[in-house]
Amino acid sequence: MKTLLKNARILTLVNDEIIEGDILITDNRITKIEKNIKDKADKVIDCEGNLLMPGFKNVHAHTAMIFARSYADDLPLHEWLFDKIFPLEEKFIDGDIYHLTKVGILEYLTSGITFAFDMYFHTEEIKQASEEMGFRTTILFTSLNDKVDFMEKKVLSNRGDNLVNYCLGIHAEYTTPIERIREIAALSHKIKAPVFTHVGETESEVQGCVERYGKTPLKLMIEEGLFDYGGGGFHCNYFTDEEIELAKKHNFNIITCPCSNLKLASGIAPIAKYQKAGLNIGIGTDGAASNNALDMFREMYLVSTLQKVTNKDAACMDGYDVLKMATLGGATALGLDECDVLAPGKLADIIMIDLKNPAMQPLNNIKKNIVYAGSKDIVKMTMINGKVLYYNKEFFVGEDVNEIYRKAQEVTDRLKG
Amino acid sequence: MKTLLKNARILTLVNDEIIEGDILITDNRITKIEKNIKDKADKVIDCEGNLLMPGFKNVHAHTAMIFARSYADDLPLHEWLFDKIFPLEEKFIDGDIYHLTKVGILEYLTSGITFAFDMYFHTEEIKQASEEMGFRTTILFTSLNDKVDFMEKKVLSNRGDNLVNYCLGIHAEYTTPIERIREIAALSHKIKAPVFTHVGETESEVQGCVERYGKTPLKLMIEEGLFDYGGGGFHCNYFTDEEIELAKKHNFNIITCPCSNLKLASGIAPIAKYQKAGLNIGIGTDGAASNNALDMFREMYLVSTLQKVTNKDAACMDGYDVLKMATLGGATALGLDECDVLAPGKLADIIMIDLKNPAMQPLNNIKKNIVYAGSKDIVKMTMINGKVLYYNKEFFVGEDVNEIYRKAQEVTDRLKG
Repeated sequence: MKTLLKNARILTLVNDEIIEGDILITDNRITKIEKNIKDKADKVIDCEGNLLMPGFKNVHAHTAMIFARSYADDLPLHEWLFDKIFPLEEKFIDGDIYHLTKVGILEYLTSGITFAFDMYFHTEEIKQASEEMGFRTTILFTSLNDKVDFMEKKVLSNRGDNLVNYCLGIHAEYTTPIERIREIAALSHKIKAPVFTHVGETESEVQGCVERYGKTPLKLMIEEGLFDYGGGGFHCNYFTDEEIELAKKHNFNIITCPCSNLKLASGIAPIAKYQKAGLNIGIGTDGAASNNALDMFREMYLVSTLQKVTNKDAACMDGYDVLKMATLGGATALGLDECDVLAPGKLADIIMIDLKNPAMQPLNNIKKNIVYAGSKDIVKMTMINGKVLYYNKEFFVGEDVNEIYRKAQEVTDRLKG
Repeated sequence: MKTLLKNARILTLVNDEIIEGDILITDNRITKIEKNIKDKADKVIDCEGNLLMPGFKNVHAHTAMIFARSYADDLPLHEWLFDKIFPLEEKFIDGDIYHLTKVGILEYLTSGITFAFDMYFHTEEIKQASEEMGFRTTILFTSLNDKVDFMEKKVLSNRGDNLVNYCLGIHAEYTTPIERIREIAALSHKIKAPVFTHVGETESEVQGCVERYGKTPLKLMIEEGLFDYGGGGFHCNYFTDEEIELAKKHNFNIITCPCSNLKLASGIAPIAKYQKAGLNIGIGTDGAASNNALDMFREMYLVSTLQKVTNKDAACMDGYDVLKMATLGGATALGLDECDVLAPGKLADIIMIDLKNPAMQPLNNIKKNIVYAGSKDIVKMTMINGKVLYYNKEFFVGEDVNEIYRKAQEVTDRLKG
């Protein structure tokens, strides 16, 4: 199966230039990027000068949590979590996560997100939903019930061109006994695999850890050897200077989730400081329960502008740097070197940005304007693994969208009931 | 001409309920809101359960500034304004504002914005663009060149059902001689008309005013009688407690522009505090040069979530209150009592929210979720004055959109050249 994307502007992210040309895709991989490709293709899409670029990598997600979208807005954090979210999560039955995850994936497609680093219960249902819809996911193990040999087998089965892969993790220091932290650290050492976790999300989390262990959570986990083979943290709003230095030494990746952090009043991560320290930075949406949207455009806008306002400097945090965090930064954090940039041999995870959307007009600095004026509205196509899953606001995921909604609503109503 | 919008959920904003029913529009006004309207209509639109609500009121705009969108991102405020924006604005020739304004209006339509309070040069060109496209605008006079009798005549010609009306204003204290402030105050008294201005946008603006006059800008202008017949201020990031009290006494309207304030590192307005003081609050996008998008969804999200994070309280600033600021709050500020809510007799400025967009699924709290997960992507229809100007991502503005883009690009390239 050959697909030809013609007459495009292309930001390959191999370098910083926008070139003009065509992209030929054979099955699930890019085979050619050139001007005026003459190959016969089974499917030809005229891009009409619109921009092709690598899809966004959403590197922190709880996709199935769309059931709680706007179910418990505007509540204090503790009440939101303990009185609203946890009681509903206790009611899950088999199949729920499968149906809910699908709605989240539909939303990812509308935002040009071609990959999610997903952390939730019933991982086999996440896998099934992702594979059936053609979506690329790495599943993070964080349940205390996951057995070490099961996780070892899953992580060792990873291949760059799988739609679904696995990663070691813990939920967070404050929810994980020290024995489990050590167990995961030992497995990470044994199979040389990175580990990810929530860390430094709230001030009270950090204080609690200091009370328990006499040290801040990142320092504790680094000293326990959890990140000796890399990995990273979600949120990272509260790191000491010592932790920043340790993070740098361990190639610890920062995953920032500005929308969730604002909505839950957790704080604002000092991303400009992390960038200056040379840390790699990726961006995540977190779950819809706390965001409420699964939208990389809103996240990108905030990664930049929150640094400007908190540093009182409009020149702080270059827009194009943020575009790279949402693509390359996430890919680097997760080791996605088969779908990081657009080049022959790479997996075809490609999005088309509609430059004829009024928010993209006139054409001045296209790359920065995607960050500063972009929204889901400018996404014209989302292709994953060589397949067009979303085009001109229509979904091609092998199933009627209304049926997906109906089932997710049914699950949601039962959980709330 | 009768248009029937059938099978809708309807948030009239007459009260807080979402009802089910149809809306009948005769020419430019709503004539009936009921279940199962049987009237024959020239045009019938099946809303398929999607939500109809009043359009958003963008109550601070410099619409034509789209020429500078992403032309000068990531620069310090002073350099951005004096080295980049002002030199281009000096090059305007007749017709430029007309062509540029049209692109801004297209973008408003994509964001469900049915009204703009526009402040820019060449006001007759803003009027022409708005009327030709069918967009509702109130033009704010702020040029020092506008003669008092000209402004008086224009403001006295205002009618609630005009597409284009006028309002008195000054640009800001720091750009306006005290004699002009007094002249506008006198005219406001003579014709009993409100006055609007930029105020309290940056700390340096406030300091400068204190140095010049020994008092803060809002206090100065209130003491000069500028707001004795109402009006309001754009940005309002830095008001003293004394100013908040004075504002309340004068029915002074707060117009907040969070995106622009973040991107230019101006600050974060204490909206929760203003709300507590009982001030009316509207929301504006400001111009694309400093935002860069003309998008009410991004503004609404930030009006709420920035208050949560700065007040360290996830319960601060209710999402539905913010939805009302973006509609009723703006309408109240501008005296738009003919298009504030959906009811028989009101002008038909109506938008349709696509509840089948994945970001709106499942249905939990629809009103709050528009604020927390909405984006331009969920706007299915924008109707102004009874005419559908935008439907299913297509524009109906009496002119080819690509031609509008071509002319705006031509103007932009000449300005930059």
